[in-house]
Amino acid sequence: MKRYVYNFGNGKADGNASMKDILGGKGANLAEMTNINLPVPPGFTISTEVCEYYYKNNKQLPKSIKTAINESIKVLENNTNCLFGDHNKPLLVSVRSGSRASMPGMMDTILNLGLNDSTIIGLAKSTNNERFAYDSYRRFIQMYADVVLEVDSSLFEDALENLKYENNIELDTELSTNHLKQLVDIFKKIIKKEINLDFPQNPNDQLWKAIAAVFDSWGNTRAVTYRKLNNIPSEWGTAVNIQSMVFGNMGDDSGTGVAFTRDPSSGKNIFYGEYLLNAQGEDVVAGIRTPLPLTLLNSQNQKNQSSLEEVMPKIFAQLNKMRVKLEKHYKDMQDIEFTIQQGKLYLLQTRNGKRTAEAGVRIAVELVKEKIINKQEALLRVPPESLNQLLHPTLDPSANFELLISGLPASPGAVSGKIVLNSEEAEKMALSGERVILVRLETSPEDISGMHAAAGILTARGGMTSHAAVVARGMGRACITGANELRIDESDRKIFFGKKELDSGTEITIDGSSGDVYLGIVPTIYPEMSSEYDKLMSWSDQYRRMKVRTNAETASDVKTAKEFGAEGIGLCRTEHMFFDEKRISVMRQMILADSKEERTLALNKLLPMQRLDFESIFLLMEGQPVTIRLLDPPLHEFLPSSQHEIDLVCKEMGVKKEVLRQRLIQLEEANPMLGHRGCRLAITYPEICEMQATAILEAAANVQKKISNSIQIEIMIPLVSSKKEIVFCKNIIDEVANKISKKLNCNFNYLVGTMIEIPRAALLSSQLAEVADFFSFGTNDLTQTVFGISRDDSGTFLNEYIEGGFYINDPFVSIDENSVGELVSISAKNGKLSNKEIKLGICGEHGGDPKSIRFFEKISLDYVSASPFRVPIARLSAAQASILNKSA
Amino acid sequence: MKRYVYNFGNGKADGNASMKDILGGKGANLAEMTNINLPVPPGFTISTEVCEYYYKNNKQLPKSIKTAINESIKVLENNTNCLFGDHNKPLLVSVRSGSRASMPGMMDTILNLGLNDSTIIGLAKSTNNERFAYDSYRRFIQMYADVVLEVDSSLFEDALENLKYENNIELDTELSTNHLKQLVDIFKKIIKKEINLDFPQNPNDQLWKAIAAVFDSWGNTRAVTYRKLNNIPSEWGTAVNIQSMVFGNMGDDSGTGVAFTRDPSSGKNIFYGEYLLNAQGEDVVAGIRTPLPLTLLNSQNQKNQSSLEEVMPKIFAQLNKMRVKLEKHYKDMQDIEFTIQQGKLYLLQTRNGKRTAEAGVRIAVELVKEKIINKQEALLRVPPESLNQLLHPTLDPSANFELLISGLPASPGAVSGKIVLNSEEAEKMALSGERVILVRLETSPEDISGMHAAAGILTARGGMTSHAAVVARGMGRACITGANELRIDESDRKIFFGKKELDSGTEITIDGSSGDVYLGIVPTIYPEMSSEYDKLMSWSDQYRRMKVRTNAETASDVKTAKEFGAEGIGLCRTEHMFFDEKRISVMRQMILADSKEERTLALNKLLPMQRLDFESIFLLMEGQPVTIRLLDPPLHEFLPSSQHEIDLVCKEMGVKKEVLRQRLIQLEEANPMLGHRGCRLAITYPEICEMQATAILEAAANVQKKISNSIQIEIMIPLVSSKKEIVFCKNIIDEVANKISKKLNCNFNYLVGTMIEIPRAALLSSQLAEVADFFSFGTNDLTQTVFGISRDDSGTFLNEYIEGGFYINDPFVSIDENSVGELVSISAKNGKLSNKEIKLGICGEHGGDPKSIRFFEKISLDYVSASPFRVPIARLSAAQASILNKSA
Repeated sequence: MKRYVYNFGNGKADGNASMKDILGGKGANLAEMTNINLPVPPGFTISTEVCEYYYKNNKQLPKSIKTAINESIKVLENNTNCLFGDHNKPLLVSVRSGSRASMPGMMDTILNLGLNDSTIIGLAKSTNNERFAYDSYRRFIQMYADVVLEVDSSLFEDALENLKYENNIELDTELSTNHLKQLVDIFKKIIKKEINLDFPQNPNDQLWKAIAAVFDSWGNTRAVTYRKLNNIPSEWGTAVNIQSMVFGNMGDDSGTGVAFTRDPSSGKNIFYGEYLLNAQGEDVVAGIRTPLPLTLLNSQNQKNQSSLEEVMPKIFAQLNKMRVKLEKHYKDMQDIEFTIQQGKLYLLQTRNGKRTAEAGVRIAVELVKEKIINKQEALLRVPPESLNQLLHPTLDPSANFELLISGLPASPGAVSGKIVLNSEEAEKMALSGERVILVRLETSPEDISGMHAAAGILTARGGMTSHAAVVARGMGRACITGANELRIDESDRKIFFGKKELDSGTEITIDGSSGDVYLGIVPTIYPEMSSEYDKLMSWSDQYRRMKVRTNAETASDVKTAKEFGAEGIGLCRTEHMFFDEKRISVMRQMILADSKEERTLALNKLLPMQRLDFESIFLLMEGQPVTIRLLDPPLHEFLPSSQHEIDLVCKEMGVKKEVLRQRLIQLEEANPMLGHRGCRLAITYPEICEMQATAILEAAANVQKKISNSIQIEIMIPLVSSKKEIVFCKNIIDEVANKISKKLNCNFNYLVGTMIEIPRAALLSSQLAEVADFFSFGTNDLTQTVFGISRDDSGTFLNEYIEGGFYINDPFVSIDENSVGELVSISAKNGKLSNKEIKLGICGEHGGDPKSIRFFEKISLDYVSASPFRVPIARLSAAQASILNKSA
Repeated sequence: MKRYVYNFGNGKADGNASMKDILGGKGANLAEMTNINLPVPPGFTISTEVCEYYYKNNKQLPKSIKTAINESIKVLENNTNCLFGDHNKPLLVSVRSGSRASMPGMMDTILNLGLNDSTIIGLAKSTNNERFAYDSYRRFIQMYADVVLEVDSSLFEDALENLKYENNIELDTELSTNHLKQLVDIFKKIIKKEINLDFPQNPNDQLWKAIAAVFDSWGNTRAVTYRKLNNIPSEWGTAVNIQSMVFGNMGDDSGTGVAFTRDPSSGKNIFYGEYLLNAQGEDVVAGIRTPLPLTLLNSQNQKNQSSLEEVMPKIFAQLNKMRVKLEKHYKDMQDIEFTIQQGKLYLLQTRNGKRTAEAGVRIAVELVKEKIINKQEALLRVPPESLNQLLHPTLDPSANFELLISGLPASPGAVSGKIVLNSEEAEKMALSGERVILVRLETSPEDISGMHAAAGILTARGGMTSHAAVVARGMGRACITGANELRIDESDRKIFFGKKELDSGTEITIDGSSGDVYLGIVPTIYPEMSSEYDKLMSWSDQYRRMKVRTNAETASDVKTAKEFGAEGIGLCRTEHMFFDEKRISVMRQMILADSKEERTLALNKLLPMQRLDFESIFLLMEGQPVTIRLLDPPLHEFLPSSQHEIDLVCKEMGVKKEVLRQRLIQLEEANPMLGHRGCRLAITYPEICEMQATAILEAAANVQKKISNSIQIEIMIPLVSSKKEIVFCKNIIDEVANKISKKLNCNFNYLVGTMIEIPRAALLSSQLAEVADFFSFGTNDLTQTVFGISRDDSGTFLNEYIEGGFYINDPFVSIDENSVGELVSISAKNGKLSNKEIKLGICGEHGGDPKSIRFFEKISLDYVSASPFRVPIARLSAAQASILNKSA
């Protein structure tokens, strides 16, 4: 006979971690935890094969299963010393779905199954908390009615609201035991009225129907849609996990807590957690009561709070032993939930713990030292995007601060911004470019977008593992929680920091690493990188294949990028150099010139300026490759646009207004993005290309005398759509090089290549590669043309498109592999076929995006180029891509 | 021994038409003409193999060739009864290059080789025209010095100008015999001075050097470049043609002329030509003397002019016999050049004759009737673009005209425009949108661009085969030549039509079919199509595979297109319907609406208007497919832009200026082409899509009751870049259809498909085809995105790009096969693979372009859609494409 039910409990389980197919993810993990002797509340798992049977047999369960489940219930009763349906010591269970892959859309959890009008008495007695018992009962009835009996949940919500309204009650917590008892009655009547059924009092009835409901939820619309979207076979089926309930609110020998096996904030190898005596799990997580520290070490930082280490030393010792076992077994820092029921410790859950970037790096590196994982594993452990957090600023110690209050240091980073009191406001102000700090009593999932919009979060309630803290760490936002002295007057939009009263909109600074809140904007400085960070980065460099360059043109950006590990410049936008106040007027002279002669005069003035810029860059880069893009934007970008500016420029330059206005009209474009720009300017005004080539090559000649490494110049022609454009510009550059090398008696090491940023260029790459020394994929513009979306104008619809699932990702953030990526891939392949020496790189924003970098590794580009602050992210991403690609 | 020299003459030739490889195109044709007994002046061809030898042997000719050429010269002397170098009856020859493919950049022609100080006497005597003889001599010296001796031609030009200046002479024709004799001496001295060489007096010397010069010209830079660009192998080499000269200016028994075997203007099967007695060929073509008609029939139309038929009946009879022979042999209407030398007729050249579109159609159809060609050949004979000319308007006979003067009806069509006196002005005014008539004494090749810019051409001099006439017919421009009563005062910019004096810029109308010139703008009407045209079109329909639809939305356009043979509507742009004066304000209400409700109110007003439009279209199309595109342009296109308009709209609509201005700012876009338009509007405002679907389907329901054919509705979603966009819109349409079909109790036959006009759509076509019933390629927008060129802004550089060879064609005129075409091809293939029922069509401008249509046939699209007036062109092009594709 086929085995359908798998028990776990008391250190023995029928299954193990490898049996995900049959037990589902959750079931396999519960078995595994039991096997390694963790004190998991006992239970059993009904296998996914039952689900398969259920659907193949017209929603009937196999006959043999009834006996098997009854037997398992008996084992449970023995293990827990409780009886299913008993009014003294009732066995209560949770029922959870659990498939191979995590799957939202299916039934999640029913708690406290087994409660009825008789067992409720036992629960009240054993927890010594009648209110808690009835609160649990009314929740159980509503949940059961909703997911098993399919009674509209809003009916229960309405009844609850009515009762509160009648009794003039605002919060659920204010409901008395009697109110809750009334509610239980009302809920039962609703069920009777809606489906003409008494709420099932028989626990076995409850159980059978709950099991069927789990299997039914596998076939509901939401689950089916999710499977389709994520390519999960419908044959997989779900398992059902039935586990005995344990209660942390059975008196002062009970309690509940959460813990991390290492400090999730710093990554230090210390035990870290919080607990509450005589409480249920929700009480810790929801931030309603502020929890106490787990260890003596923690409690020393927070005065007047006694740690679990002190209060229950035996339990703590048990937990501390578990900690080592867990990390050895799961090879990562674990986030655990535990409950102490009348002096007995239960581990409810363990999973890889969320952590700050700093902690992530430190833990990964130290796990290697501890020989728990290897270097490649360590590299894959750190989400590249999280490094962003490491670059977060800290307060400048030399600045003057006015400390307002202090709270818990929930997520690191020092940021300033205006106080906002709700998420809508946060989003609105952030959209209009303001930096804001979201200040709340506590946060809930509805605040996610507001938290994302904010630079930092400050809450009055909640601990280090509260919603606010966990989410902020995940997002890399600075966060302080549990700032007890904080009060908020929503109606008057006033905030009290201790006695100090501030208006909403006032600027404050929060330091998420210390927990301190300051008045006004406090100057910040960027952090030194930790030695663990340096180690991880050196491993990245060891394992990656692609080079990482940077997009930079100013000396300060170039310096920053070099410090972050850039190995060259992938994109130096020469036009940025023209916007300098002193230069823009010469640039305008050039644009307003009537003849080639006049234009050349102006260009001759620009030449020495550009040459100086390039000299400083060549000096800084010390022989690393420098890709310089020739003038790209349409000329009208350099001219004034407002009437005021026009008047000013006319006066300054001694140009008649009419002349300037005429030129402005002449240069106006309906779609400048697709207009007279890029190499099209060089075709019309070859003298501009000539000037730039001269500036670049003379600068190189001058600097070469001062440095020993040979300067690697890469001149890049933008917006190319035909081979002849490259030839045309290359001829100019080669002529200039010949002239200069004769004049200055020197030799150059320079390449001439092209941006691939127009679909036609990508499609004709084999032709272009015949004359180009390199391709640099300008995926920003390529995304614009491939999607037909102007980035400047996408605001009106792109969000709607991403939220509505029209596009899976924002294509300007992660490369769209099937379209833009496909063109890049075709271009790279054909380019290489026709010129096997060709260098291939990427200089669009995607060059700093981890997901995109993974794609670029797959198609074997030579390098990516990212903005200076994303260089570390690109280095780590490139290493991960390389490791994953090899193992794929 | 290899044969290097091939003689032709006296009805016998060593070669024939099939020997192009060895004799070159010209040599093979001369042999062919000789073989079919045409009186070609005798000569011989030096084969391309000599050229090959020449380049392989360090520019040496094979030794054996000297004897061979000397022998051929002897044959020539016998045939012509002249002697090479003789001072009484000198044999003069022309030397011409001639490769397999026609190749500009190579040496073209040296005439009168054999002239020297002694033979000149014979030429003067035999032509009885000493001035002509010396004029020929000085031209020969200059030409020979230029191409053979490589003396700078400008030295001779300067000398000529000096002589004219010294003698106060303005025109070359005013030079006396003595002046020309002086010039011969001066020219010889220039050569002596420049290269220290006496001008070669030995005709054999002249000949050898000329032959070498032809071979050298095969290797010059221009020729090499041309071969590279056109993939002509350099091994092919050129032949050299040496032919005896004949002279039409040897007295009144001599003459020269050009003729067409059928009337090149109407296509009528009548002999048609012009001649001049005692004249050289240039005299006819250059338009210096107005020539006389060839036939009696022609001369009856032109008073006081005696025809060749009357003056030389024997010669005419000979010509007339040749005419039949030529058409039988070459299977097409021929354009011939002939010379009568002292009573003997020579045929200098025959080639397929240029003709008007009308003539082209008539000749092709009649050649089929005469069983000279078959239908497929006839279809391939007519350049589709030429049909444009058939659509040219004629004068409205009911209008009042004031006739100014009359000339020769050189190219048909009646057009009005402002008088311009030179090409620059014509181009300038045409660019600013004015219609102009170019009025000149005569035209020359420098006038080509002015003629192209003009709507019509009127010249005072020249005949039906003058430069102006030939070029205008080729371009499809109306043209009148030889208007003797026309005088032009360039300095005062006045024009005299007989006694009437008009200023430049005055509006006139010319009728190129009658030769009449009228004052002012005379109303015109479109022509009835000839029965030959109908026949050709019916053959087109018989041989083409692709359907031809039209892009139209107004009733009048739809009617026109149906008359031109459209088989459906491929693109009905609904937004055009909103620009109507009465509707635009409702449209603006919709755009300015603050809420969905307000917007729906305005849409409800637009609904009945749109429904009416669709009803009229469905009625007209009688069940042929109608593709309706949902609203496409960005909403700001419907709002006013100038301050004046804004004020007006605010007043009219009772909207505050601030409100309108705010909305204008909100809707403003940096790149509207890549902005919030197409289906992106439907995603943001589903109610617009709903209204349009309702209008379309209700209209169909209403009309279906009135017509018997089932209405074929194709609703097209624009600017799609993802599958979900189609699904989203299709859901709205399907819901509307369900509602209406229940309400009106009817069934619909409708398809929902998409434009493919964004690269991403083309690349993801297999996904899109899962939900789209059809693809219509919007190649206008696709070209814009694939090239990264905004059509609105391309004016500043696109011409330069095409002239500079950066792009071979204007990609907006003919589809760029390697890029845009490649995407269309990928999309069509993948679309078909994922949905084998999918309909594939094209609705961009390329749908009416013959070259593009050839491409669309290759990739098996189902239909093309063209603007109404291009429908006939598309039908013929599709037939040609089909025929060519089958034979390929």
